[in-house]
Amino acid sequence: MEHVELLPGERIDQLYQNHIQIIQSDEVFSFSLDAVLLANFTQVKQSAKTQIVDLCAGNGAVGLFLSPKTRGQITEIEIQARLCDMARRSVQLNQLENQVHVKHADLNQSLRFFGKETVDTVTVNPPYFPVQATSRKNPNEHLAIARHELKTNLDEVVTMASELLKPWGKLFMVHRPDRLLEILTTLQKQRLAPKRLQFVHPRDNRAANMVLIAASKDGQAAGLKVQPPLIVYDQDHYTPAVRKLLYGN
Amino acid sequence: MEHVELLPGERIDQLYQNHIQIIQSDEVFSFSLDAVLLANFTQVKQSAKTQIVDLCAGNGAVGLFLSPKTRGQITEIEIQARLCDMARRSVQLNQLENQVHVKHADLNQSLRFFGKETVDTVTVNPPYFPVQATSRKNPNEHLAIARHELKTNLDEVVTMASELLKPWGKLFMVHRPDRLLEILTTLQKQRLAPKRLQFVHPRDNRAANMVLIAASKDGQAAGLKVQPPLIVYDQDHYTPAVRKLLYGN
Repeated sequence: MEHVELLPGERIDQLYQNHIQIIQSDEVFSFSLDAVLLANFTQVKQSAKTQIVDLCAGNGAVGLFLSPKTRGQITEIEIQARLCDMARRSVQLNQLENQVHVKHADLNQSLRFFGKETVDTVTVNPPYFPVQATSRKNPNEHLAIARHELKTNLDEVVTMASELLKPWGKLFMVHRPDRLLEILTTLQKQRLAPKRLQFVHPRDNRAANMVLIAASKDGQAAGLKVQPPLIVYDQDHYTPAVRKLLYGN
Repeated sequence: MEHVELLPGERIDQLYQNHIQIIQSDEVFSFSLDAVLLANFTQVKQSAKTQIVDLCAGNGAVGLFLSPKTRGQITEIEIQARLCDMARRSVQLNQLENQVHVKHADLNQSLRFFGKETVDTVTVNPPYFPVQATSRKNPNEHLAIARHELKTNLDEVVTMASELLKPWGKLFMVHRPDRLLEILTTLQKQRLAPKRLQFVHPRDNRAANMVLIAASKDGQAAGLKVQPPLIVYDQDHYTPAVRKLLYGN
């Protein structure tokens, strides 16, 4: 195993499904089920010429989890320097320097790295919560930026995804169902046709608390598919479907 | 039991859950699970002053299934005279003449029966399929009108629902997920805020083939809720949830 330095509070977690190791920190950023589900939901081409961009990359979990699914190039764009540093060390740890590239940048600056409409696939696990005067934000700034729309928002994320994507390029996003109407409207305004939805329910008798969305640049508006639901827990255990994603069996 | 005349090809079916009897005919119109699910999904006020309108009423199944849930008045509007006749006889059969009223009319004429914005609840199980030059329609005209947008379409249905509904009145609709984007856009254009969705999957590993939608007139756009999914079959049997809706146990 590659040797990388850990900072105070950091640990190395493993996604057993594909043996990817990730540097985590509860004080700064830890990936959660959202990232695992997004990487699983994302369909990528095999070809080495494939360009994949992960926006709001955090500690790089989504891009790292995607790496075994493609020989394409994966670029992770993240605004927080501290998280970029974690992501870069995780890339080293997995010896993926030739495939996964971490860029410290505001996502609005993504066209510094790519020509307009040249990317095959964009993934994004954006901040879920709108910023309202009254909303309680996490007092930890790193976590607050990752969870609340402090540095970007849905409209900016979708606009940039659309500018990056080739015609027929695909966007894969995880978000919250309570914002589904806004998401679907924003996607369509930016030439992204929603094609597939999957709702994630904590239990089979509970409302969905996540939604996975696949959209196609300049795709046809008709023919949305709502996939089988994903149920996370069955009594006190992960369901077999989720256990397989996390542990590979 | 009330005596009513049956025409050739007609039979009486019973929804065991609430003992409602319905005149059916495979050659003309038979309610299906869609109607049962829509009536179950619909929330109605108890009060006798409640005005409920069922558009595209067919043989009256949705209105009849709703009747045990409220003391309100239920008006069924249906364009096909033959189906209105079946619905009227089913109303007699259940001795619901004081609660359920069948109107033979184009839904665009609904304001003949109600003042604008005076209705509490509208339900609708509209024709699902757009009419395209190439689309294969049912050669049976009664069934074709019920299933294809020959005499009305999504836009007309939603527009009329909105004109009928009071502020804060509720629309409950069953439709197909492949038209979800169009449905959500059309609702919002007509001052109807989608508030609840429930997807219906034939099996737990199959894409949804129905969606139930609750929308609120002049409601807030935020806060959509995606309810637990409804799975219809488990192996070769109805799931307990569906069995309960059909048979009451």
